[in-house]
Amino acid sequence: MPDAPNLFVDIPTSIPAELFTTLLDGLPAVRIERIVSHGHASPEGFWYDQGTSEWVLVLRGAARLRFEGEEPIELAPGSYVNIPARRRHRVEWTTPDEQTVWLAIHY
Amino acid sequence: MPDAPNLFVDIPTSIPAELFTTLLDGLPAVRIERIVSHGHASPEGFWYDQGTSEWVLVLRGAARLRFEGEEPIELAPGSYVNIPARRRHRVEWTTPDEQTVWLAIHY
Repeated sequence: MPDAPNLFVDIPTSIPAELFTTLLDGLPAVRIERIVSHGHASPEGFWYDQGTSEWVLVLRGAARLRFEGEEPIELAPGSYVNIPARRRHRVEWTTPDEQTVWLAIHY
Repeated sequence: MPDAPNLFVDIPTSIPAELFTTLLDGLPAVRIERIVSHGHASPEGFWYDQGTSEWVLVLRGAARLRFEGEEPIELAPGSYVNIPARRRHRVEWTTPDEQTVWLAIHY
């Protein structure tokens, strides 16, 4: 019986930069992406400011996401956040203890 | 620090019918849904035939998905499958041993 592709495989042990992998490109409606972080954070003072909306889900690891002007939000496996277009945000922290695997849906 | 909503919480222990929960309704572009199965399968001889495309990811548990005229595909946590609109398919099996949690993105 064939196996489906699996987003937990083919992750290198060492990822000097965050790793972005497109899983589905159903453009223009949607793009689904795997992101792997390992202690990474957005550069100091940097804010993402995106023209499209993004829904993110943490699958493994731990992270903190901050919207401009708000407290950081704690993310554990299963946690999800919707980031509307033009809502400024940054990744404050990802755990150094293990890889954090995210699913991001750009729509 | 506030916690984000988590898709692994608020799942009843007993689910007589499969449980469908909309997590994001970004219509018309996208709809994101959690599905919880526990030994459920599509009715014998039944095929889903949807007007929109659907990308599914298994987060927990185990399942088998079949496209019409093909072998079933084995799904474990992390496995994902894209189901184009009008591609007839069915859920052949989900494990009776634990709950299977799916993420479905309709686009």
